[in-house]
Amino acid sequence: MRFCRFDDNRLGVIKGDMVHDVTEALAALPPLAWPVPHGDQFFNHFDMLRPQMEALADRVPGRPVGEVRLLSPVGNPGKIVAAPVNYALHLDESRADRQINFGSEIKTIHEYGVFLKSPSSVIGAGDAVVVDWEDRRTDHEIELALVIGKQGFRIAEEDALDHVAGYMIGLDMTIRGTEDRSFRKSLDTFTVLGPHIVTADEVGNPGALDFEITVNGESRQKSNTALLILNVQQLIAYASKAYTLYPGDVIMTGTPEGVAPVKPGDVMHAWIDRVGEMSVRVA
Amino acid sequence: MRFCRFDDNRLGVIKGDMVHDVTEALAALPPLAWPVPHGDQFFNHFDMLRPQMEALADRVPGRPVGEVRLLSPVGNPGKIVAAPVNYALHLDESRADRQINFGSEIKTIHEYGVFLKSPSSVIGAGDAVVVDWEDRRTDHEIELALVIGKQGFRIAEEDALDHVAGYMIGLDMTIRGTEDRSFRKSLDTFTVLGPHIVTADEVGNPGALDFEITVNGESRQKSNTALLILNVQQLIAYASKAYTLYPGDVIMTGTPEGVAPVKPGDVMHAWIDRVGEMSVRVA
Repeated sequence: MRFCRFDDNRLGVIKGDMVHDVTEALAALPPLAWPVPHGDQFFNHFDMLRPQMEALADRVPGRPVGEVRLLSPVGNPGKIVAAPVNYALHLDESRADRQINFGSEIKTIHEYGVFLKSPSSVIGAGDAVVVDWEDRRTDHEIELALVIGKQGFRIAEEDALDHVAGYMIGLDMTIRGTEDRSFRKSLDTFTVLGPHIVTADEVGNPGALDFEITVNGESRQKSNTALLILNVQQLIAYASKAYTLYPGDVIMTGTPEGVAPVKPGDVMHAWIDRVGEMSVRVA
Repeated sequence: MRFCRFDDNRLGVIKGDMVHDVTEALAALPPLAWPVPHGDQFFNHFDMLRPQMEALADRVPGRPVGEVRLLSPVGNPGKIVAAPVNYALHLDESRADRQINFGSEIKTIHEYGVFLKSPSSVIGAGDAVVVDWEDRRTDHEIELALVIGKQGFRIAEEDALDHVAGYMIGLDMTIRGTEDRSFRKSLDTFTVLGPHIVTADEVGNPGALDFEITVNGESRQKSNTALLILNVQQLIAYASKAYTLYPGDVIMTGTPEGVAPVKPGDVMHAWIDRVGEMSVRVA
């Protein structure tokens, strides 16, 4: 199944180029009150909601996806875990290019581990990335992103894919500089998730997906998730060694070589095999 | 006013050594539904809730604070912003001690900026910090922590204190190693907030507070917030340059010299002038 959030917090199931409004399925969610428990309530109950979403999608008419404004398909990500220098050629370019490393020694992902991005940085494909630190280079980084569907702590690699609800495209927008990654990558609008979520069963093996990002039609990054240094299973095992992963937590798997700056007016077009494609404006 | 969360998500106002259960005040909160908007709902509505909490506290009997289990006074922190090497003598010790820097060059906070800790790492004073990476040194770091009460983006230093709802003690537990700060400091139980919140009006100037942490009765860190390199106002201005600060976001202001390891069985006792004191077990 492919599903999205759109317009005024509507929930949609996508079939072909049509989105079917299945917001009614959310009526089955239990009442929510402060303080809300850990996890995104939708993904806490996704197994219950999914059959109702599928049944509704068969019943209600669709409208063209192109006519709606796509929001982040994860409504309440609890934490966003991201992987630094997780493709060998991006490690090489980061070490070679002072505009990327800003004079810092670049280590390996085995030394860095993973880092966090702020949930307040998340937007969907229908929003624009705001780039307005004029004295700084701001780069696109395309990544395979996933959302956790099942809570887990110290998850074994062989069980890791059972904890994935689905996959998305992630754009990890990044200001270059000396600051901590969790700062430079957490500006408002700096985490684009979308265009929709493809459930894990439809993607199957996440370790052999072609993907590409173009800016104004020019190819910038093009790779395959087979080239990840730590693959999806290893990232889930690694992150959950430290902290519980809750439904709705997002993992961004890292970006390959070809990171480059964007400026207001640019249009990024991102595509991942079996996941989808989206165009995102820079404002 | 001093207020806390305790036991089974009860809300309490503290007077002297007594806690008055004012959970009934939460009935005034508007209904909540997925996706929940940015910000902790309590702090989104704190100005409305406060008079009701105060009125209830005058009416209901109290019970000794020592009899309740204290939870994190912030129920749904959206993000936790923390300040690295923000006291000069801690910068010195970090540079001098390979057990702290793990062979990495330690820069200044002006170069690092601020970093993130995971909301899933938060516990209250009534919980225990779990230290179980036996091959790693795990340190206490006591800090003045604050919770945001008013949303803001690119907040001017002179307006910054208007955005603070109140202050707490923060323990930024830290595994030493080469990994990204946002990883090493985000393990489950690695952010202790408590024992309660003291509203900003009762604290006044946050820039001249004595504080100390002892472990098993032995003094470890002792300093004053006057020695912060970036003070509370500057940290708020700095962080909000990158991202919107929402009510319920937490800022931890950094730790002074004296960081040192803890082990299971230890008891940390933390105190900040005009804010409070708490004992936290290591399990």
